[in-house]
Amino acid sequence: MATIECIPNVSEGRRADVVERIADAIRGIPGVRLLDYSSDASHNRSVFTLAGDAEPLRLAVLALFEQATAAIDLRTHRGEHPRLGAVDVVPFVPIEGVTMDECVALAKAVGAEVSERFGVPVYLYEDASANPLRKNLEDIRRGEYEGLAAKMASPMWAPDFGAAAPHPSAGASVIGARMPLVAYNINLNTDRVDVAKKIAAAIRHSSGGLRYVKAMGVKVEDRNLAQVSMNLTNYQKTPIFRVFELVKREAERYGVSILESEIVGLVPSAALVSSAEFYLQLERFSDGQILENQLRHL
Amino acid sequence: MATIECIPNVSEGRRADVVERIADAIRGIPGVRLLDYSSDASHNRSVFTLAGDAEPLRLAVLALFEQATAAIDLRTHRGEHPRLGAVDVVPFVPIEGVTMDECVALAKAVGAEVSERFGVPVYLYEDASANPLRKNLEDIRRGEYEGLAAKMASPMWAPDFGAAAPHPSAGASVIGARMPLVAYNINLNTDRVDVAKKIAAAIRHSSGGLRYVKAMGVKVEDRNLAQVSMNLTNYQKTPIFRVFELVKREAERYGVSILESEIVGLVPSAALVSSAEFYLQLERFSDGQILENQLRHL
Repeated sequence: MATIECIPNVSEGRRADVVERIADAIRGIPGVRLLDYSSDASHNRSVFTLAGDAEPLRLAVLALFEQATAAIDLRTHRGEHPRLGAVDVVPFVPIEGVTMDECVALAKAVGAEVSERFGVPVYLYEDASANPLRKNLEDIRRGEYEGLAAKMASPMWAPDFGAAAPHPSAGASVIGARMPLVAYNINLNTDRVDVAKKIAAAIRHSSGGLRYVKAMGVKVEDRNLAQVSMNLTNYQKTPIFRVFELVKREAERYGVSILESEIVGLVPSAALVSSAEFYLQLERFSDGQILENQLRHL
Repeated sequence: MATIECIPNVSEGRRADVVERIADAIRGIPGVRLLDYSSDASHNRSVFTLAGDAEPLRLAVLALFEQATAAIDLRTHRGEHPRLGAVDVVPFVPIEGVTMDECVALAKAVGAEVSERFGVPVYLYEDASANPLRKNLEDIRRGEYEGLAAKMASPMWAPDFGAAAPHPSAGASVIGARMPLVAYNINLNTDRVDVAKKIAAAIRHSSGGLRYVKAMGVKVEDRNLAQVSMNLTNYQKTPIFRVFELVKREAERYGVSILESEIVGLVPSAALVSSAEFYLQLERFSDGQILENQLRHL
């Protein structure tokens, strides 16, 4: 059985009854697990975390769209978080026994059905988008719901599915597939934030560093430490150990060493196993040798 | 749900019908998965690999005893492998969501029931044994079935469960709990087997090295390489990374470096995750952060 994670972001974080109706609709789909959901009132936004195989997830996301588009009206929606639609973003993330291509196919199938059934235009993003200008969520969302009608009038911003005009109350939705994020921080043996900032600039993609690294240098106030705070957006192509070794090398340049590192939140076990493989110089190793994988697949 | 592995070794490797009857008896217990079984005719011995929670495993091992004691007679059994009983050894191995103490309790419960129901005396071994002289399987089995009556007459070898005399046809059984073994080899950048032998002697427990390491130096003939070939008998207390680093340091002494390492067969993911934690200097990390663990437990 494949495991795909899906994290729909919905533009409602204040009316608990609406959030509960959406949660109940998800729970009503056999084969889907609702792992978590939480609402932020100031953002006026809720994030649902679902897991399951492709077909039950497809049904769950459609059920979520049905509830959200019936209850949410972007014309009166206010909140701090940028948003384009009632169901704002829906990423599908491959976890186990499933390829990125299969998640892309799922995103496209759901996108097509959403535009047909609910009249909501859909943009594909990240790995599901073939258009390099429309991979980045922030680019697609720029201008938000309020600027959407004008933006969609430009041929450059014709949606991937549906008409080139916003749904009056539900706006548009961004649906796609991406790798799981790993939030990874490295604490330095120094309080010099300027060093952390220089290291961050050296290793992050946006300023010439590693392809799947976002990084910034910050101060951990309560411990008086400088930290390189990172998001690793594809742990397969830019693995944790390479980031760690590069930070270590750059830190040496300033006479600084690594105090410790930390993973914030969840991490796929493969992201850690690949670091063990690297440092132990493991050859001829396959995922099938991990005992838990054997037990799970039998 | 807890996952315990159980690997009963049965003294029958030639009569396929007997082996199949045992396999069928195991398959008949709901909640137990028969992951593997294989027979060796020259050893005249079969090894079954089962996984499940404590209660179904208890029933499966009793069902195995019922079939094996009915079909196997040690008085006429011949084979290359040393053995004490029809069901020779039954280790329980904690895999996930279960402690060693729980596996010890299971071994004792099964041992008591085996002696009562089938009249087979039982020795506890490894972590299930409180007697330091009776932890090691080889010590308990020394003398084999043929020497068992004389051995059991000594108070030192009174069994943990049952009478101090062998079952006429089924001998005695050794039941216990142990950590999973990790078969781990390190290939050196040299063909000098003497270097591999010296490193093996330096790192193994028996000659003064790490507590849970068995090691020997061998030649990998087809690649003309020297290898340190190891069994790690408790990867929690003697972790892989510490073995790797010690071998690397000892090899330097002879001007030799590590070419690569390899894990033979299965390995619990925790054994690799702990190496990632070590090399990445990960702090504040818990198993609950591994995505797959979250998905499995919900």
